[in-house]
Amino acid sequence: MAKWEENIRKVIPYTPGEQPDKSSMIKLNTNENPYPPAPGVTEALQHIDTDKLRLYPDPAVSDLTGAIADFYKVGKDQVFVGVGSDDVLAMSFMTFFNSDKPILFPDITYSFYDVWADMLRIPYERIPLDEKFQICAADYKRENGGVVFPNPNAPTGELLPLDMVEEIIAANKDVIVIVDEAYIDFGGESALPLLEKYDNLLVVQTFSKSRSMAGMRIGFAIGSPVLIKYLNDVKYSFNSYTMDRITIQLGVKAVEDRAYFEETKEKIIRTREWTKTELRRLGFEFGDSKSNFIFARHPKVPAMELFEALKKKDIYVRHFNKPERIADYLRISIGTDAEMKAFVDFLDQYLTDCKIVTA
Amino acid sequence: MAKWEENIRKVIPYTPGEQPDKSSMIKLNTNENPYPPAPGVTEALQHIDTDKLRLYPDPAVSDLTGAIADFYKVGKDQVFVGVGSDDVLAMSFMTFFNSDKPILFPDITYSFYDVWADMLRIPYERIPLDEKFQICAADYKRENGGVVFPNPNAPTGELLPLDMVEEIIAANKDVIVIVDEAYIDFGGESALPLLEKYDNLLVVQTFSKSRSMAGMRIGFAIGSPVLIKYLNDVKYSFNSYTMDRITIQLGVKAVEDRAYFEETKEKIIRTREWTKTELRRLGFEFGDSKSNFIFARHPKVPAMELFEALKKKDIYVRHFNKPERIADYLRISIGTDAEMKAFVDFLDQYLTDCKIVTA
Repeated sequence: MAKWEENIRKVIPYTPGEQPDKSSMIKLNTNENPYPPAPGVTEALQHIDTDKLRLYPDPAVSDLTGAIADFYKVGKDQVFVGVGSDDVLAMSFMTFFNSDKPILFPDITYSFYDVWADMLRIPYERIPLDEKFQICAADYKRENGGVVFPNPNAPTGELLPLDMVEEIIAANKDVIVIVDEAYIDFGGESALPLLEKYDNLLVVQTFSKSRSMAGMRIGFAIGSPVLIKYLNDVKYSFNSYTMDRITIQLGVKAVEDRAYFEETKEKIIRTREWTKTELRRLGFEFGDSKSNFIFARHPKVPAMELFEALKKKDIYVRHFNKPERIADYLRISIGTDAEMKAFVDFLDQYLTDCKIVTA
Repeated sequence: MAKWEENIRKVIPYTPGEQPDKSSMIKLNTNENPYPPAPGVTEALQHIDTDKLRLYPDPAVSDLTGAIADFYKVGKDQVFVGVGSDDVLAMSFMTFFNSDKPILFPDITYSFYDVWADMLRIPYERIPLDEKFQICAADYKRENGGVVFPNPNAPTGELLPLDMVEEIIAANKDVIVIVDEAYIDFGGESALPLLEKYDNLLVVQTFSKSRSMAGMRIGFAIGSPVLIKYLNDVKYSFNSYTMDRITIQLGVKAVEDRAYFEETKEKIIRTREWTKTELRRLGFEFGDSKSNFIFARHPKVPAMELFEALKKKDIYVRHFNKPERIADYLRISIGTDAEMKAFVDFLDQYLTDCKIVTA
């Protein structure tokens, strides 16, 4: 090892889900939306002024923060935008989790939380979910340097009711509580109305799921103006211009179309509920997901076996090897009706061939 | 102050240059390229598959790292791409400047270096430029935790000859040396060939200046495969998907067109040299800039006065109030021939009216 290697920050990086790109595949592994972005996005792409790309974008991203503020009926000074919700969350960890006390998050949760904490040297404590994979609000009433949890939780899909979310915030008024609502649009109740009561709450959402824009990298946070100010100060100290000109314009079009947004998410919810019925019929076990994925296990077939069998047929789902409690689960993103039918048909045939399902 | 404010990371943010947006303005304040991106960029925009925007982009950004590697004739595993060179530099500071010893950079230099160091709690020492605003290689031969400097330097535009760059790298083999070459394409000699001799060297460049893409946020670093691996590990631990699908596609087109790139930068160099002749005629003093800007003072008129007079005519240049050594300078980006003529004509008239220039 060269001497210069000694002082390099060495981290065990987060491993993103596979991103296979085959025309025939059924991609149910990274919780993308199966429907295209709002029609206004395609339209806007036809009117990009290429000459303007030589100029820096607006560092305040005003058009996009304004459009988001309008949609959620909050002040423009309450909105922060970043390069996907991962960027928003990383900046939030850096800004708000700056204490010597451990931050708290669930033991089974979004796998980036401990990666950010390790990299930024933030102490943390993992709070176990109960045996039904539920967050218990009472467990978050201990001394801490901040709290963060997804709602619905990932990869379980379990929704914490709003009164329990409030119980956690109310018990932690001296720190920042981040509610990571990447999947809230698929049947959950957002914590946004709680902003009227709590100025230490930060709600983070994304365009990657319910707005079909994973490929464009747009996430946002909504909070009290003072929190957003602190967040912007750190962002401006890291990279003044994070959102490019095209992303800003397309993002505005994506958020403006409320009707398309409602229609798309309703379709996904209907497909999810149909998939639940079918998986139940095939003997799978899972909670009542309120997200755009189902986290399921089959009591008679190991997850790894199913994962590999599906992959051979170019059907991609997600399997996490750790922690052990979830090693026998598959996370299945909700695709189109046709994709979910093909997925269910394959499982039906596979389990029949194994004599686990009988016709 | 709420109790939760106590543990928030408080920083004095970097203030980006003004980004006025008037149709009639002459914008010479943020070193943008006056010419549009390569024609292939416009062409590629017409062929974006909007449906694909619902899918995550390639986290490894292979198409773009590949195109950059081809252009510079280096290995693909030697290229790292980020959201502008600010993102690349911030990630590099986080990855490589991880020692208790101070990093070294010039006292007059890119104003983000001390902002990043402060935010990331990296100790640093500012090494004074000499009286001609030159970097002295001998000053960088003291114990340190890393070295970073722009070449040409900003905002002075002064180029350090390659043998002096090598002298600094050779004297600092136990740490990482970052050469920030945002402006290298306008007449400088890149440190890239030194990569064959030094595996502790990281060269950072950007698409924002010589490739007319400031609005799209693309920066890159080239270094030894082991440095790039460490940088990617930190990047993947911060945000796996930083480059969106459209940016990747347009970036490839921008870097592929070598003829357009050469032609554009030659035009800017010619306009810069013409502008130097004119400014000299008007009594301005400046060094021999090898960048796309000129850093100049007039011995008889305060910079602030000229800055304000120009602004009234919608001609924007950059003025830095601090440090004091440069408070009487203006940084003037090189625009088109017509823009520079209008700029010079205004100064000529202004200085004549003040009886400083006589016809």
